[in-house]
Amino acid sequence: MDYVYAPGRNHLFVPGPVNIPEPVIRAMNRNNEDYRSPAIPALTKTLLEDVKKIFKTTTGVPFLIPTTGTGAWESALTNTLSPGDRIVSFLIGQFSLLWIDQQQRLNFDVDVVESEWGQGANLDILESKLASDTSHTIKAICIVHNETATGVTNNLAKVRQLLDDYRHPALFLVDGVSSICALDFRMDEWGIDVALTGSQKALSLPTGMGIVCASPKALEASKTAKSVRVFFDWKDYLKFYQMGTYWPYTPSIQLLYGLRAALDLIFEEGLDNVISRHKRLGTATRLAVEAWGLKNCTQKEEWVSDTVTAVVVPPYIDSAEIVRRAWKRYNMNLGLGLNKVAGKVFRIGHLGNLNELQLLGCLAGVEMILKDVGYPVKLGSGVAAASAYLQNNIPMIPSRI
Amino acid sequence: MDYVYAPGRNHLFVPGPVNIPEPVIRAMNRNNEDYRSPAIPALTKTLLEDVKKIFKTTTGVPFLIPTTGTGAWESALTNTLSPGDRIVSFLIGQFSLLWIDQQQRLNFDVDVVESEWGQGANLDILESKLASDTSHTIKAICIVHNETATGVTNNLAKVRQLLDDYRHPALFLVDGVSSICALDFRMDEWGIDVALTGSQKALSLPTGMGIVCASPKALEASKTAKSVRVFFDWKDYLKFYQMGTYWPYTPSIQLLYGLRAALDLIFEEGLDNVISRHKRLGTATRLAVEAWGLKNCTQKEEWVSDTVTAVVVPPYIDSAEIVRRAWKRYNMNLGLGLNKVAGKVFRIGHLGNLNELQLLGCLAGVEMILKDVGYPVKLGSGVAAASAYLQNNIPMIPSRI
Amino acid sequence: MDYVYAPGRNHLFVPGPVNIPEPVIRAMNRNNEDYRSPAIPALTKTLLEDVKKIFKTTTGVPFLIPTTGTGAWESALTNTLSPGDRIVSFLIGQFSLLWIDQQQRLNFDVDVVESEWGQGANLDILESKLASDTSHTIKAICIVHNETATGVTNNLAKVRQLLDDYRHPALFLVDGVSSICALDFRMDEWGIDVALTGSQKALSLPTGMGIVCASPKALEASKTAKSVRVFFDWKDYLKFYQMGTYWPYTPSIQLLYGLRAALDLIFEEGLDNVISRHKRLGTATRLAVEAWGLKNCTQKEEWVSDTVTAVVVPPYIDSAEIVRRAWKRYNMNLGLGLNKVAGKVFRIGHLGNLNELQLLGCLAGVEMILKDVGYPVKLGSGVAAASAYLQNNIPMIPSRI
Amino acid sequence: MDYVYAPGRNHLFVPGPVNIPEPVIRAMNRNNEDYRSPAIPALTKTLLEDVKKIFKTTTGVPFLIPTTGTGAWESALTNTLSPGDRIVSFLIGQFSLLWIDQQQRLNFDVDVVESEWGQGANLDILESKLASDTSHTIKAICIVHNETATGVTNNLAKVRQLLDDYRHPALFLVDGVSSICALDFRMDEWGIDVALTGSQKALSLPTGMGIVCASPKALEASKTAKSVRVFFDWKDYLKFYQMGTYWPYTPSIQLLYGLRAALDLIFEEGLDNVISRHKRLGTATRLAVEAWGLKNCTQKEEWVSDTVTAVVVPPYIDSAEIVRRAWKRYNMNLGLGLNKVAGKVFRIGHLGNLNELQLLGCLAGVEMILKDVGYPVKLGSGVAAASAYLQNNIPMIPSRI
Repeated sequence: MDYVYAPGRNHLFVPGPVNIPEPVIRAMNRNNEDYRSPAIPALTKTLLEDVKKIFKTTTGVPFLIPTTGTGAWESALTNTLSPGDRIVSFLIGQFSLLWIDQQQRLNFDVDVVESEWGQGANLDILESKLASDTSHTIKAICIVHNETATGVTNNLAKVRQLLDDYRHPALFLVDGVSSICALDFRMDEWGIDVALTGSQKALSLPTGMGIVCASPKALEASKTAKSVRVFFDWKDYLKFYQMGTYWPYTPSIQLLYGLRAALDLIFEEGLDNVISRHKRLGTATRLAVEAWGLKNCTQKEEWVSDTVTAVVVPPYIDSAEIVRRAWKRYNMNLGLGLNKVAGKVFRIGHLGNLNELQLLGCLAGVEMILKDVGYPVKLGSGVAAASAYLQNNIPMIPSRI
Repeated sequence: MDYVYAPGRNHLFVPGPVNIPEPVIRAMNRNNEDYRSPAIPALTKTLLEDVKKIFKTTTGVPFLIPTTGTGAWESALTNTLSPGDRIVSFLIGQFSLLWIDQQQRLNFDVDVVESEWGQGANLDILESKLASDTSHTIKAICIVHNETATGVTNNLAKVRQLLDDYRHPALFLVDGVSSICALDFRMDEWGIDVALTGSQKALSLPTGMGIVCASPKALEASKTAKSVRVFFDWKDYLKFYQMGTYWPYTPSIQLLYGLRAALDLIFEEGLDNVISRHKRLGTATRLAVEAWGLKNCTQKEEWVSDTVTAVVVPPYIDSAEIVRRAWKRYNMNLGLGLNKVAGKVFRIGHLGNLNELQLLGCLAGVEMILKDVGYPVKLGSGVAAASAYLQNNIPMIPSRI
Repeated sequence: MDYVYAPGRNHLFVPGPVNIPEPVIRAMNRNNEDYRSPAIPALTKTLLEDVKKIFKTTTGVPFLIPTTGTGAWESALTNTLSPGDRIVSFLIGQFSLLWIDQQQRLNFDVDVVESEWGQGANLDILESKLASDTSHTIKAICIVHNETATGVTNNLAKVRQLLDDYRHPALFLVDGVSSICALDFRMDEWGIDVALTGSQKALSLPTGMGIVCASPKALEASKTAKSVRVFFDWKDYLKFYQMGTYWPYTPSIQLLYGLRAALDLIFEEGLDNVISRHKRLGTATRLAVEAWGLKNCTQKEEWVSDTVTAVVVPPYIDSAEIVRRAWKRYNMNLGLGLNKVAGKVFRIGHLGNLNELQLLGCLAGVEMILKDVGYPVKLGSGVAAASAYLQNNIPMIPSRI
Repeated sequence: MDYVYAPGRNHLFVPGPVNIPEPVIRAMNRNNEDYRSPAIPALTKTLLEDVKKIFKTTTGVPFLIPTTGTGAWESALTNTLSPGDRIVSFLIGQFSLLWIDQQQRLNFDVDVVESEWGQGANLDILESKLASDTSHTIKAICIVHNETATGVTNNLAKVRQLLDDYRHPALFLVDGVSSICALDFRMDEWGIDVALTGSQKALSLPTGMGIVCASPKALEASKTAKSVRVFFDWKDYLKFYQMGTYWPYTPSIQLLYGLRAALDLIFEEGLDNVISRHKRLGTATRLAVEAWGLKNCTQKEEWVSDTVTAVVVPPYIDSAEIVRRAWKRYNMNLGLGLNKVAGKVFRIGHLGNLNELQLLGCLAGVEMILKDVGYPVKLGSGVAAASAYLQNNIPMIPSRI
């Protein structure tokens, strides 16, 4: 089944699933084990403790659910809300759209706050809703930290600020799928009630683990939430946590060992260094886009994303052709434009276990593709702009000094 | 995290997760890939086609869901039924109990038909229910093909016969978690409407893929079923099937390639040969149990299971001690007795990619453990009984003749 | 190329290459690295230090040569001896025969001391040679510690004793291929000058690394030895040891990391525990052979080998048929009888990373095969005899108590 | 032992060992097997047949020796020559120097034809030697096809031409270590008698297999060659070839399966396409060097190497600092300057399983390093020059069209 073989390394620059580092692939290269023997609970205990660090929470309770981001969303919503509950949700791109679709299908009463794709969540509207909701009919604010479709990062601290300003008790639910472990994320400090991510994003694992973290307030809410749920019910997990066996149903042994290795690598690099590295890669990418004379889909500097850059192509070019060509000629995978921005943008994912020279190889490839499709780019221009920044900013590798 | 290291191969004889064959481990030893590139849909297409063969269906539609067996159950139920629907469900052990718990939490009206643990589903009661249900209030029959907790295999052909005899339109939903790919299973012939299994059982993969197969009748039912569902909704899959991109959300690339390899191995051996091998291993195990002078938890020959054997220990022995000792002294994992049979039985899982000499090593180990815990077993007796049968019945390996 | 696929685990019971433990397979699952970067010398340094422990030497200098046991032999001989040198060498089976063939082709003057196959080295003849060699014309004694073809272990302490008794300065060169890391081996205490093994034997790695350890006296001899050598020349290694870069030519990165993992596992279990485990497995095997009514090729108890047992079959059976049948029907690999004992013996290798239940599975298999080929074995008899011993002697697994 | 961990993929640009493609890593991820069972000879047979294709020979006989390039050299020499034989050998860099050192230590009478490092073999001197050697005292011509230390490719067709012109019967022995599978190489057409390479070079495997191919004339010579040899003796191989068991001593099972996968990938891409890809990568690299205003160590266009480029740095820069910095800051490995060119050149290896974007990432990295060490490079200039060429010359990936 390697019938689409191409020589050399695949250049994987979609915003997920991302490159898995070799030590993690190694850690997962194993037979199954009995998850009821003492070894797996002992391993799980360390994972639950350490995974809280990537959320920057000490009071949250994490759940490692055998599911994807979509399932993690469902877990966050159904455990904390009841059908008919009013929630405010921001539509700023394809992934926030899909989450809103889920919210509606789960029978919540969703106030959709829409922005133009390329803009962040409209927090002014949030403010006016909070201001007028003196009877606290809004039960939750749902927001995507980083909209993967447009490369827009929302300001979560500001959301918390508004909730505090209006002393509003709404739950604060955050999709951190393309942010946690890559962008600055502070669950406790920002008073986030449920945060979630997927294993195949900045954690750089295979798909298959939805990681959800619940605040004490969210856990309290789960006791009365009336949404129907079984597979995603936190209650079953909590019961097994108490028993010390941890798993209500069979986990992937491989993903557990993989998560252990992934966390070890992140802590070895230092979570803040990981975040700085993403900032560096994001900045370099944006400098290249600028040098090419192209526009970032993200409309304002305040929203730029350090995990994914959506590049707007001129109207005479079909961005899907760029993605196709990347794969067919350069063994590179870029992200398509989705829905409203289909054909108009292509996306460079620069998250996870990635370094500067990998990114520069990608940027050099994008330049050639742009030329292939008729855009008058100056070859080397983007790489030059990115390199000029990087050469000044890459730190020495601590373990090698 | 190999801090519980023991020399030599771990002897994994729990009824799941089971041993992964080396070619499958190899197939999964890979980086992530972009699931939106042409390669993954092409691979997926072959998987969906071939996975039907293990269900023995040509008309069913399979769904490969990033979840566990518990999630697969939920998918089967919520896509075909509406809250309040009356269903008949058989309680014969821990796993049927858990499924019934799920059915009740999903707000179905469950007629629980209970049998003593160690017995099969009481089909006489089913018959009387069907006979009296002339107005067809029963919407579905839910049955576990093989109850993993007690080693009891139910007679699905008989269930179909009864439904036909009474011309009853109820949906026929089957948990095939510890049966499919190991026991004789005929979705089309037996008129099963939803059948499901998990990747970590007889398919011999890691945990993480719930495989659900729906008959045309089940698909029709899904159009009107009112149970709330999003992550488990077949509709989203069907939409992407139609588009030819197949995935509503990110699949595990590794599990897809793993499934490809697992199916290839099963087809190379021949599905019917795989089933014969399980029959051989099941028979050998039961002969050993008999030779030891112990009882099978399964009370009648008609229900014996070729994938798991629950062995009843004498009252003066705690079966959990047998399981602990297996791990602590012999690097072997056996299954605990669960719930009602906790302490009373231990379980030998003999499913998946396993051969005769592996089983004999296990049986030799069980003999020593029985002696360790004070049961007066004659060492070698079980192995001798099993070998006598196996030596007469093992076929030559076709590829090596 | 898995066209000889058989279900379940292959039962590998040849005396090499042996089963590789999963943590070692994992450690080797990696891309190449630059062996001139600082990482590889740092790793190599730990390996050279730790590998001495498996030889039980503190004064020896080890060489990790990209070769097999045959190359390791050549390294031992050509670095210490000159063409025409008189050496005493013991012919007791196929591997000592091959070494002697090499010695003769390298133009040494070999006193071949032959024993019947199944007997150990004739040390009486050695004694008389040493006694009469007052002018010290004998430059080296070459002996295989464990003859893999017949399952005979020689008494190295006795050889040293004789050399000391006669104050004979001959070099003491030992093939420890199927002994080191499995049998009691004491380089320093026994005054061995060159000892060697191969990675694929008790170290449980892939083939490809010949490990040679030289005493100070051997190193001194290497300065004047006139045998022509380049690839196997210790001088080149020593030069790079001094520079701290360690490698005169490219090592296998994978084997280096594999060796690291293999040594870690051995030290975790404890080298003396590893040796005890081999004693346990060897004893159990011999008890089974006895219970089957068959003879061990090894003619006296003092020579029995804890790493390989050569089982003599009755004259009316072709032992090669046993080996063929093991492979064709039971997915098991046994060792053939070689040369003089071809057709007469089959061999069970029980060395390396192996545990008791694996061995019992093998023994159960051998019983069935014996029956297949017409030997009137009582099924279960060998397993019973082995189990009776093992059940009394297997210790708890330290990490799991 | 990943204590020198750095985020992202290591950029391995030494001229060996090189990057192993994922399908090959996968193929090698396996337990040991019995090499005397029918599977391994069957596999070996295909390997011996297919490996001839990479030498472009139909009449040659290949030997897969568990050794490195140094051992392959020794095999080539000792099997075809006798001590005292006169040979002509070209010294043009560190690796030809090492080979000559071996030739001298093996007691051949070597006419060393030295060129300035950066120049190719002086074939004028060869011509004069051949012309004057009417009595055919010259027994062999030894030449390195591609000198890895300086990035110089010799003209083998010309050597053959000269031998033919003078009807000289000398054997033609070629080190193809950094050329075979990457550069145009034609064993039969050029009348090469022994050619050799190592697994860790353009074949993109781990180190550990020396591949030597002998012409009928070389095989004939081996019958009378008097050099002492055992481990490297072709005779032992030929004996086992005849028996159909193929291996005189234990091969690495993992490398055999790895070689199978490596050859499959090469044939899937097409050997000539592989060679074109190397030409493309070599050209691109040289264009970048030129754009940086630096000199190639190779002094004339006729000798440029498509597998390695040695870049001369200005006198005020220590090239070793470039290599160190690559590793410490950019997670990249470049080749050091060796011996005469130590400190003066650094080397970019661009051979094996590598693609264009990987190379461009490397070039972008080199630019930043050059700036780091004080060379006034224009960032992006090399990438631009290389890209301009590549964008015009990269073909579509055949399997993806």
